[in-house]
Amino acid sequence: MLTLYIGNKNYSSWSMRPWVLMKQADIPFTEEKVRFDAFDAGPETNFKRTVLKVNPAGRVPVLVDDGLCIWDTLAIAEYLAEKFPEGHLWPRDVQARARARSVCAEMHSGFTALRTHCPMNIEASLPQAGALAWRDHPAVRADVQRLVAMWSELLQQQHKGPMLFGEFSIADAFFAPVCMRLRTYQLPVPGVVTDYIRRVCALPGVKAWVDDALAEQDFLDFEEPYRTGRG
Amino acid sequence: MLTLYIGNKNYSSWSMRPWVLMKQADIPFTEEKVRFDAFDAGPETNFKRTVLKVNPAGRVPVLVDDGLCIWDTLAIAEYLAEKFPEGHLWPRDVQARARARSVCAEMHSGFTALRTHCPMNIEASLPQAGALAWRDHPAVRADVQRLVAMWSELLQQQHKGPMLFGEFSIADAFFAPVCMRLRTYQLPVPGVVTDYIRRVCALPGVKAWVDDALAEQDFLDFEEPYRTGRG
Ligand SMILES: N[C@@H](CCC(=O)N[C@@H](CS)C(=O)NCC(=O)O)C(=O)O
Ligand SMILES: N[C@@H](CCC(=O)N[C@@H](CS)C(=O)NCC(=O)O)C(=O)O
Repeated sequence: MLTLYIGNKNYSSWSMRPWVLMKQADIPFTEEKVRFDAFDAGPETNFKRTVLKVNPAGRVPVLVDDGLCIWDTLAIAEYLAEKFPEGHLWPRDVQARARARSVCAEMHSGFTALRTHCPMNIEASLPQAGALAWRDHPAVRADVQRLVAMWSELLQQQHKGPMLFGEFSIADAFFAPVCMRLRTYQLPVPGVVTDYIRRVCALPGVKAWVDDALAEQDFLDFEEPYRTGRG
Repeated sequence: MLTLYIGNKNYSSWSMRPWVLMKQADIPFTEEKVRFDAFDAGPETNFKRTVLKVNPAGRVPVLVDDGLCIWDTLAIAEYLAEKFPEGHLWPRDVQARARARSVCAEMHSGFTALRTHCPMNIEASLPQAGALAWRDHPAVRADVQRLVAMWSELLQQQHKGPMLFGEFSIADAFFAPVCMRLRTYQLPVPGVVTDYIRRVCALPGVKAWVDDALAEQDFLDFEEPYRTGRG
C-alpha cells in the first residue's frame, strides 16, 4: 500500500508533482497531509516532527511503500516508473526519455528566480506582483524565457503535443506547478504556452489537486509575500 | 560514441560526477573540456557559446551520444544506468536503489549552504575559510550534520561499506565532490566519515580526476572567494 505525504495543496509545489502523477496514472494511494506550520520549520514544529519520522531530510513529498520511505520528487518518480512499468510514466522512446529526464532534472535544481519571486499560490490571482517580478528581476525573465523555449520546442517541433512528450508523462507532472505560477502571476508567454497551460489545467489529476487547494482555505502568512489575507 | 562536456576539473563539481561514474564503470568516452571564462557567463562568452550548442540550459556536464544530448547529472546518470545495465550503476536491490535515488536527488537540489560557502577547489587547502564558514553559518553546520547522519547510517547500519551502498554506485559519484569540499575546508566530521572520504579518494576514477585537476593550474579569480593566487 502506498502512502504519499504532502504539504498544503495551495502552496506545496513539490508535493503536487507526485500526487498529480499518481492520479493521472491511476495508481491508488493514501494521502497524508502535513500542514505547514512555520516559516523555518524547526525540529519542534508538528510539520518537522511528523515528516522526520519518514524522511530524514525533513521535507515533503515522501512516498511510503510498505515501510520503505522514498523522499524527493525525482526519486519518487523513478520508483513509480519502475514499479508500474505498464503505466509508461516516462516516454517509451529512449531519446525522448533521455530528454524528459533532462528537463525534469533541470526543473529540479533550477528556475530558482521564478520559484523565489513567484511562489506557488493556486487560489491567488497576483498579476500586479507578477508584473513587478517581471520588471525588476532579469533572472525571472530568463527563467520564463527558458521555459518558453523548452516547451515550444517540445510541443511544436519534437512531439506536436498535446503534452510535452506527446502523451502525458512525468515531465508534465513536473511542470504542472510551474503552470500554476504562470497563471497566478500572469507572466507574459506566447500562445503555444498558454494553450499548453490550459491543457495541463484540464488534466483530471491537476483539476482534482486544484479543487482540493481551493477548498483548503488555509491562509499561511509565511507563504504569502504578496497578500495580507484571502480574497 | 559518448562525449562528455565538462568544466574546469579543479572547480566543476557537477562535471566531476558523471566523469568519475564513467571511469569507475569502465565506460569509454571522449572528454570535451570547456574552460570557465566568466562569473556570470553571458551568451557572448566562449563557455556559453560552446555549451549552448549541446545544452539549451547552458551548463555542464552534458553527455552526447551519437547526436543525442543529455544534460544534467541526474539525467546522465539514469541514461548510463539504462544503457549499461551490466554495470549495475544503481544498487541491484529495489529498496537500496530507492534509497540511493533519494540521497542523490537530495544532493541534487540541496546542501545549498555547503555549496555556496565551500565551493569545490580541489587543489586548495582552506582550513581557515572552513573554520569561519562553520562558525558563521548555521546552515553549513546543518548541511554537514545531515551528511554525517546520512553516511553514517548507510555505512554502519545499512550496508557496512566500503561504499555508501556496499559496492560503488552512482551515489558515491554524486557525493565525491562533497568529499573534496570536506577535505579542502577540513570541516569537522567523525571517523566513519573521514574513513569514507579516504576510500572515495582512493577510487581510481576519483584519483584520475584529482590528478587532472592538480595538473590544470588554471587559477580563475571568479571561482576563488578565499584566495588571491595559487599556492
Ligand atoms: N528536492 C525536494 C524539494 C522538497 C521541498 O522543498 N519541499 C518543501 C515543500 S514544497 C518542504 O518540505 N519544505 C519544508 C522545509 O524545508 O522545512 C523534492 O524534489 O522533493
Ligand atoms: N543541475 C545541474 C547543475 C550543473 C551546473 O550548475 N553546472 C555549472 C558548473 S559546475 C555550470 O555549468 N555553470 C555555468 C553557468 O551556470 O553558466 C546538473 O546537475 O548537471
